[in-house]
Amino acid sequence: MRAVKLYDLANARDQRPSPFCWRAKLSLAHKGIPFEVVPVRFLDIPAIGDGTYRTVPVIEADGVWVGDSSRIADFLEQQFTDRPTLFPDDPERIFARFIEDWVNTTIHPAIFRMVARDIWSRLDADNQVYFRQAREKRLGTTLEATVADRDSRLPAFRASLEPLRATLKRRPFLCGQSPGYADYVAFGALQWPRLASDYALLAAEDPLHAWFARCLALYALDGLNAV
Amino acid sequence: MRAVKLYDLANARDQRPSPFCWRAKLSLAHKGIPFEVVPVRFLDIPAIGDGTYRTVPVIEADGVWVGDSSRIADFLEQQFTDRPTLFPDDPERIFARFIEDWVNTTIHPAIFRMVARDIWSRLDADNQVYFRQAREKRLGTTLEATVADRDSRLPAFRASLEPLRATLKRRPFLCGQSPGYADYVAFGALQWPRLASDYALLAAEDPLHAWFARCLALYALDGLNAV
Repeated sequence: MRAVKLYDLANARDQRPSPFCWRAKLSLAHKGIPFEVVPVRFLDIPAIGDGTYRTVPVIEADGVWVGDSSRIADFLEQQFTDRPTLFPDDPERIFARFIEDWVNTTIHPAIFRMVARDIWSRLDADNQVYFRQAREKRLGTTLEATVADRDSRLPAFRASLEPLRATLKRRPFLCGQSPGYADYVAFGALQWPRLASDYALLAAEDPLHAWFARCLALYALDGLNAV
Repeated sequence: MRAVKLYDLANARDQRPSPFCWRAKLSLAHKGIPFEVVPVRFLDIPAIGDGTYRTVPVIEADGVWVGDSSRIADFLEQQFTDRPTLFPDDPERIFARFIEDWVNTTIHPAIFRMVARDIWSRLDADNQVYFRQAREKRLGTTLEATVADRDSRLPAFRASLEPLRATLKRRPFLCGQSPGYADYVAFGALQWPRLASDYALLAAEDPLHAWFARCLALYALDGLNAV
């Protein structure tokens, strides 16, 4: 196999905060598959591949194109059966899927409502126009109004991470003794605001920091340890 | 084995709303183990067994006492290996544990903040005094103040159940084609306000109703279909 190409979202500082792209990058690293990162900005996404993609990550492997982090994980698991599984002790992937659904529908929206304007502030001018229009339409209000009460939202957000803390009391990674896709999904959610914002989402004494540091130390990936 | 005894929380209407007791009752039914229910009220709990229990459910099986719904599930799984497993496709129980942690730390507190006063209103006078004192100490405010803004909390609560809906789009039960402990944990959370309150936590069109109805139809258990 030639090198896999991964299309990764970049901001004007060339940071790569996309939580979904982190899922894909860590999944590739987990499988030991070398890959080349192609940075794109929001406005470049429609030019990827055959022009049908509206989100990243997208990967290209030997002429096969796959979009959507969840489908990419499935594709890698299916294609590289001789490599470590992304779903240890989870043959039907129900745990990983639940974490994914929980993060997508609960954790990501809560984070976005706190750092949306910070994400915007790190884009270049063209992408700022696009991002503000698209996101304010979805939010039904301005980015500024969205984040205005973030301090008051913070305690409930921190409390909502308790299931992660409870699971990580019992084991070093969500997936057990070694990490898996569920870890990468949860990691991506926290890596996103870490790279796109200065806002401290976790309290300094949060036990999640230890697990997050273990994730940061897993693989030598560009931008993994960037701030 | 003689019949198992299960100590179950009852209110003044002899309803059995405890979500933790539902976990245990459905787990026993799942394993096909006959059991006798011993109704207790809050103030009776310290008199159970050797007097060390502070919560129900508690079960007694051939002289062995086990408290805590999570420990009871582990005990049943270990003792009755020839019966259907409570953790299908989940050998390390990580999915079930995550659901349990998520329900305990996120869903139960959100429900309690909406129906706490309704629960109180269905207790007898002595238990009302106990419940109000203990819970108001924990809440740091009155039962009435706790539930005062419940209508405004309802949309966020309903949204927080999205991971259940997403999982149940793919399969009839959280655990797959047939139900398991994770289903009983989530079911218990919704059975609790259904029996202890008139407040409609789910919208009439919520797709969770179909799964909830499947759970109600699983076993012939006293009080399962009561309202």
